[in-house]
Amino acid sequence: MESETPPKPQFLPDGTVVVPGFTLPVSTLLSEPAAAFARMRATMPSFAPASEEPDVTVRRDQINAYARPGAERMRESFPVTITRGTIAGVEVMEFTPEAGVTDPDRVLINLHGGAFCVGWDGIPMLESIPIASLGGWRVVSVNYRMAPEHRHPAGVQDVAAVYAALLQDYAPGRIGIYGGSAGGVLTAQAAAWLPAQGLPQCGAIGIFGAGGVPFESGESMFTAGYIDGSFPAPRLDRTMAIDMTRGYFDGVDDKDPSAWPGWHLDVLAQFPPTLVITGTRAMDLSPAVFTNSQLLKAGVRSTLIVGESQGHCFHYQVSVPEGRDACDLIVRFFRENLN
Amino acid sequence: MESETPPKPQFLPDGTVVVPGFTLPVSTLLSEPAAAFARMRATMPSFAPASEEPDVTVRRDQINAYARPGAERMRESFPVTITRGTIAGVEVMEFTPEAGVTDPDRVLINLHGGAFCVGWDGIPMLESIPIASLGGWRVVSVNYRMAPEHRHPAGVQDVAAVYAALLQDYAPGRIGIYGGSAGGVLTAQAAAWLPAQGLPQCGAIGIFGAGGVPFESGESMFTAGYIDGSFPAPRLDRTMAIDMTRGYFDGVDDKDPSAWPGWHLDVLAQFPPTLVITGTRAMDLSPAVFTNSQLLKAGVRSTLIVGESQGHCFHYQVSVPEGRDACDLIVRFFRENLN
Repeated sequence: MESETPPKPQFLPDGTVVVPGFTLPVSTLLSEPAAAFARMRATMPSFAPASEEPDVTVRRDQINAYARPGAERMRESFPVTITRGTIAGVEVMEFTPEAGVTDPDRVLINLHGGAFCVGWDGIPMLESIPIASLGGWRVVSVNYRMAPEHRHPAGVQDVAAVYAALLQDYAPGRIGIYGGSAGGVLTAQAAAWLPAQGLPQCGAIGIFGAGGVPFESGESMFTAGYIDGSFPAPRLDRTMAIDMTRGYFDGVDDKDPSAWPGWHLDVLAQFPPTLVITGTRAMDLSPAVFTNSQLLKAGVRSTLIVGESQGHCFHYQVSVPEGRDACDLIVRFFRENLN
Repeated sequence: MESETPPKPQFLPDGTVVVPGFTLPVSTLLSEPAAAFARMRATMPSFAPASEEPDVTVRRDQINAYARPGAERMRESFPVTITRGTIAGVEVMEFTPEAGVTDPDRVLINLHGGAFCVGWDGIPMLESIPIASLGGWRVVSVNYRMAPEHRHPAGVQDVAAVYAALLQDYAPGRIGIYGGSAGGVLTAQAAAWLPAQGLPQCGAIGIFGAGGVPFESGESMFTAGYIDGSFPAPRLDRTMAIDMTRGYFDGVDDKDPSAWPGWHLDVLAQFPPTLVITGTRAMDLSPAVFTNSQLLKAGVRSTLIVGESQGHCFHYQVSVPEGRDACDLIVRFFRENLN
């Protein structure tokens, strides 16, 4: 029967691959709750991140509305105290275990996701609540400046200001920085920025759902667009219908080491031990695995987790075993490396 | 224009994804030689690994004919002495740097690829020549028993016999085991087998182009089949037109820890430090990344390299920077971990 012979890709002389349509069954390597989630997708109209709402104010409200219920559920399993304030003039939210900080010598800085234009203050909850609770740490989440009001390097300048202030109370090797999506990019930028500004390097970083090169630089934004669909695939020339970062990198060269350190081995060589998390269905797979390979080449101890059949920032879903495992490994990574 | 809106995947109630046909441009994260190789594929009729030749004798000759020219070219860059012999009654080839072994306290055991039925003696050359030369080591490549003549666990028994004999001259922590494809699976099996047989664990292992679970268990054998095409995609029920391993696992349960240790955290917990190498276009991506995640969960120090836009066993191609980088990292990994 013809249907017995799967179609093959076609290779064009410019290296482009014409991929035939195909059917992808559920991975047998998924936990049962994750497989149940895969079955549920048929009934979900679309994921919140897929929205292409052009008004950034509306988009900010959408993302916060998306994050809040998950954050509330998280607080039931991971009880934390949340306080608001400013450090070095920058607005922050601080997360501490409700029962008190058990590891007072260490502190984590969280940089939230949201495409450099949205995310505050819903996404910091998803990224900080389980980590503060599981680690017994103080986690400081930073409301760094974003687009469309601001441009790179405003965000990483705010991160550096908070970091410099924390150096009054913590050794640099005991400060960790991490974040998901745009927060993962900003974490990589911070690890490049701090030594470039004459500040001591922090102790360890976590780049999640991102890498140190632009999202559209590799092939995963295409493959994930067609296989996972949470984010639309770019056009063949790698442009998108809408600039997801709303101009945050306007005027910044794609190879600028302060924005995209992943291209630069000499910059990466100054990174501290790094944990990189991505998934096989994540649009960030290519930037993440490329950055991990470059870090290893530069001599940095980089640990890579690629979640089988997992999408963008799957570690936000702590109710699924794969997401919970990722959070446990984040905590273990910082515990082992912040010395 | 309609062509501006990329098509979306369709999610079925059983979790299956209907992926639309799409066009995948060359990754901008590739080195120029790797991008040139991608452009060359349009002119190549098919890759040697894609053959579905049913006669295993013919297939063995095909694979050796495919491997020999590459091995000859390798020997120009990486001069080695190759000697043949037996250890514990098992046929081996030994690779040493032509200028002499510079690190005599360590030894590596290489387990060649070839779907548990082919590969000897062409593939051991591709896997051993650069590593022996770059590391300054003695590398012992094992002609383990294969299908269709033999069945699991014959292969890993041969590996254990060679390993036990080497223990007379080397500390267990100074013996490394590694291999690509079937040899990567066999390496994972060896790390499960040695402690189960009361032998001391080896010092470090390298699982390349493989994982500790069956190749068809995840989703990469599908995605790589349609995007890369070096190996055909399975049918939707995960069966193949031809059993690639020619019956090597006949009668073995898919969850048998001696064959597929990747499912078993208690078995993985006994693994030594592990290096896992795969690629975003490799049919082994899912088993490899799943095994890495499970190893980390089990508390084992696992280092994962996923080559951006790279296929099955891309580290065989030392003339391409991505392949050469992988070989350099293999050498650095064993140097750091065989103590």
